[in-house]
Parts: sequence; C-alpha cells; structure tokens
Amino acid sequence: MAHEAAGAAIASLRRYKLTLATAESCTGGLVAKLVTDVAGSSEVFSGGVVSYSNGVKMKLLGVSEKTLAAHGAVSEETAREMALGARDATGADIAVSTTGIAGPSGGTAEKPVGTVCFGVASKFGVRTFTKHFGEELSRKEIRNAAADFALELVAGECERYGD
Amino acid sequence: MAHEAAGAAIASLRRYKLTLATAESCTGGLVAKLVTDVAGSSEVFSGGVVSYSNGVKMKLLGVSEKTLAAHGAVSEETAREMALGARDATGADIAVSTTGIAGPSGGTAEKPVGTVCFGVASKFGVRTFTKHFGEELSRKEIRNAAADFALELVAGECERYGD
Repeated sequence: MAHEAAGAAIASLRRYKLTLATAESCTGGLVAKLVTDVAGSSEVFSGGVVSYSNGVKMKLLGVSEKTLAAHGAVSEETAREMALGARDATGADIAVSTTGIAGPSGGTAEKPVGTVCFGVASKFGVRTFTKHFGEELSRKEIRNAAADFALELVAGECERYGD
Repeated sequence: MAHEAAGAAIASLRRYKLTLATAESCTGGLVAKLVTDVAGSSEVFSGGVVSYSNGVKMKLLGVSEKTLAAHGAVSEETAREMALGARDATGADIAVSTTGIAGPSGGTAEKPVGTVCFGVASKFGVRTFTKHFGEELSRKEIRNAAADFALELVAGECERYGD
C-alpha cells in the first residue's frame, strides 16, 4: 500500500497535471523515495536533489553562500532558495524543500533537534515554513514527520491550481 | 539498527576518508535515504541527484541526449554518464548510479522488469554493471535489491583505495 501522504500528493499532482521536484537536506532522499515507491510516479515526478552538503546546495540548487553564512543551512531563507533552485533546475511545476536537524546531534538552543524548515515553490511564488517536531523524537521519527509535512505542502500547493 | 549494506558502505567511506554522491533513477532516492538514515552520515555523504526524468539526467548530471537516444535511459552507457556527472557535480570522491526498470510496467523483451544498470565512479575511473533481479520480484523488492547492490559497489570501490 502506498504511503498516505505520498499517495495524496501524487493524486493532487495528477489532478492538475503538474510535475514535482524535491530538494532534500535533512530528509536525505526520503521524500523522493516515498513518491517513487508508487508505480507510475514517473508521470508526475521529475526528480530532485539531495543537498546534504552546503557545496551541493550551492552548486546544484543555486543557494547563495551569503544566505548560508547569514542564516545557516537550517533556515527559511535557505529552504526558499532550495525550492526555487530545484524548480528552476528541473523545470518541474512544483518544488518542495526540506532542511533541518534530524539529530541526535547538531541541535542548538536556537535551533534544537527536530527543527525543520520547508519551502514550496510554484508559479504562485514560494512559501516557507518552520516546524518544531520535538527533541524527544528519534531521528527516524523526525525524518518521517518532515517528509509527511513536505508531501502535505505539495498537495496543498496543487490545490491552488484549482482555485 | 542501520541497514546492513548502508552501514558497511559508510564504514568503508570512513575508513578511507572518502565522500559519496548518488545518482538515482529507478531507486528514486532510496540509496540516499538508506545512507542518511544513519546519524553522522553527513561526514561522508555529499548528496546526490534523483534523476527520474531524462531532462534531469541531462541538465543536472550531464548525460548526453545522444547516449539516451542511442542506448536508452536503462543502459550501462547512461549509468556511466550519471555516475561521472554526479561525481563531477558534487565533488565527491565516489559516485554511484542506478537506472533500471522497477516495474510493474515498463519492461520489454530486451530489458525486462528487474533489469538495473549501475555505475560507480572514482579516481580510478568508472565501472558499469547490469543486474537482472527477476521479473517475479515486486517493485519494492527490485528497488531494495538495487539499492543493496549500489551500496555494495560503494564499499567495494572504497577498498580499492586501500590496495
């Protein structure tokens, strides 16, 4: 059986004949994996970038060094540039990005483990979000929750095409 | 507990202080997901590209249109260019690629469901492989088997640095 959020995102993409791209840091390919678990997803999924290092964020997604230095990799500013960069690089209609701290280490007072920033870009522009999934969650739980939220953002962005 | 093949690949990368990049078509992010399931994988994993469409294969990995037209997306020639392109784009020491037919549809007499081509690129050059995982396997089983084999290729390539 398909993953629920992935199934809903794919259904929304199909409904409006849209294509998706992903730009993943903390989820590390999980969003793309969940989408491509579904047979026939190639009709709506262009592909994406797993930008685990800052170098890949800059080189493949066009995230600026200035943004990374000023706001850090885990920031809505970086998430915004990742989503815009993925959409531009792939030509997909919608791009979604994730960048956060899946833990167990890497957290700070300002950005504790479980902090994840998201971006979703489409012809309507780009929106960003920050979620705090909670330090008490495991790395696996944080990554799963982040992937679910990213897929919900995709479905929500698709629905704007029907308004 | 970490996935066995991912754990072994990460251990080998650490042993020789190498970094990894992925270029995934049929596995669709699964290899990157398995690597990044492991806490601390950012030390050895640069990132990668999920090149589900031919457009992404060309734009982000530099696969040539001529290669795709002459040999198809599922070919050792395409796998070779994907691995070389991912290594070049990310600056990682080793890049591994997957391109195949995970099914259930998309198979042909020449390239049945379960056919997966792989490439692994390093300072030693690039090697390519074709595996036939068997039409009787499910999409999930084929993807898992392909990810395992890709991770085994990574571990094997690392060991060449110790020779």
